[in-house]
Amino acid sequence: MADTIVLATRNEAKLRELGRILAGNPVELIGLDKFPDAPDVPETGATFEENALLKARAIAGFTGLPAVADDSGLCVDALNGMPGVLSARWAGRHGDDQANLDLVLAQVSDIPDRRRGAHFACAAALVAPAGAEYVVTGRVDGWLIRERRGSGGFGYDPIFVPDGFNVTTAEMTPAEKDAISHRGRAFRALAPFVRAAPDRVNP
Amino acid sequence: MADTIVLATRNEAKLRELGRILAGNPVELIGLDKFPDAPDVPETGATFEENALLKARAIAGFTGLPAVADDSGLCVDALNGMPGVLSARWAGRHGDDQANLDLVLAQVSDIPDRRRGAHFACAAALVAPAGAEYVVTGRVDGWLIRERRGSGGFGYDPIFVPDGFNVTTAEMTPAEKDAISHRGRAFRALAPFVRAAPDRVNP
Repeated sequence: MADTIVLATRNEAKLRELGRILAGNPVELIGLDKFPDAPDVPETGATFEENALLKARAIAGFTGLPAVADDSGLCVDALNGMPGVLSARWAGRHGDDQANLDLVLAQVSDIPDRRRGAHFACAAALVAPAGAEYVVTGRVDGWLIRERRGSGGFGYDPIFVPDGFNVTTAEMTPAEKDAISHRGRAFRALAPFVRAAPDRVNP
Repeated sequence: MADTIVLATRNEAKLRELGRILAGNPVELIGLDKFPDAPDVPETGATFEENALLKARAIAGFTGLPAVADDSGLCVDALNGMPGVLSARWAGRHGDDQANLDLVLAQVSDIPDRRRGAHFACAAALVAPAGAEYVVTGRVDGWLIRERRGSGGFGYDPIFVPDGFNVTTAEMTPAEKDAISHRGRAFRALAPFVRAAPDRVNP
């Protein structure tokens, strides 16, 4: 019988992506759409790790189930690592992917090619109602192009080309992206804890 | 007789501010408005120092006169020191003070008071046509409030309160601001070189 773990996200694209990455694990993954009254957790942490833990703790507490949460973002060298934890609200309002991407493109428009390095970073946390907490990170290095390419992915994918590739993460198939992405790496690193979680959580 | 030095700026508020700070020196300061054909220098440097030197070199080369230039900006702790060198074009277009300020306010709207530290930084450069170059820096530490206060200054002044004060730099008189400001500090540090420049430049 599969144990149930809540993925603390309402972002459908992210839910699908996480679902694929954890698909091989003997757990049933459900999204926050099953808990319409779950609290919105303010992402007030200074780091991805802190925000992932804040969200996973809040959702584990609300649902009574082990909860997995991630926080991730784009870190642009020429912006000193920002948007970072503010990636989803860089242009000022939460979740306006187009405005966020347009703003980053404009901010780095005068930055020469040799200084357009960037990476995606992800922290993934698992928190069990009994108190066990795990947090791991993943990243993928690359650089920013000057115009959107590709229609896959979400967020900043259309302007990010990973090192060693000549396509953006928005031009990759989901499987290609998962294999190298920050989120793929973080969630694969978390998978052993997800498998073990029910034992540790409900002793 | 006063020697002539060009201030490499077309920003009138900045020109007035620099004029006040250097007023006691035996040099005649003229602005770029006297050189309508002077080139616009792209601020492509990664640091304030680099940009100040780029501008001063270009204007000294164009005018044949010693040139003073500065580059300055707001460095917000919670934004990893950005807007920094992108302060004047943070919202994407150059020189839209209101949009830049609104964007910073929105980006830090969820940041708690204890993490709202920021500083203004300024690099001031003097470049003589014969090749002598000087660059100095100044900064003023403080924190960001949540709504505009005051109508003086320019740029981000209405949301910046210097440490040890309870008014924004936009609520200070010009003299009060010059006494503590990043630009005041940098230009006072540059003043001895400005006084000496004609000797060194035209031997």
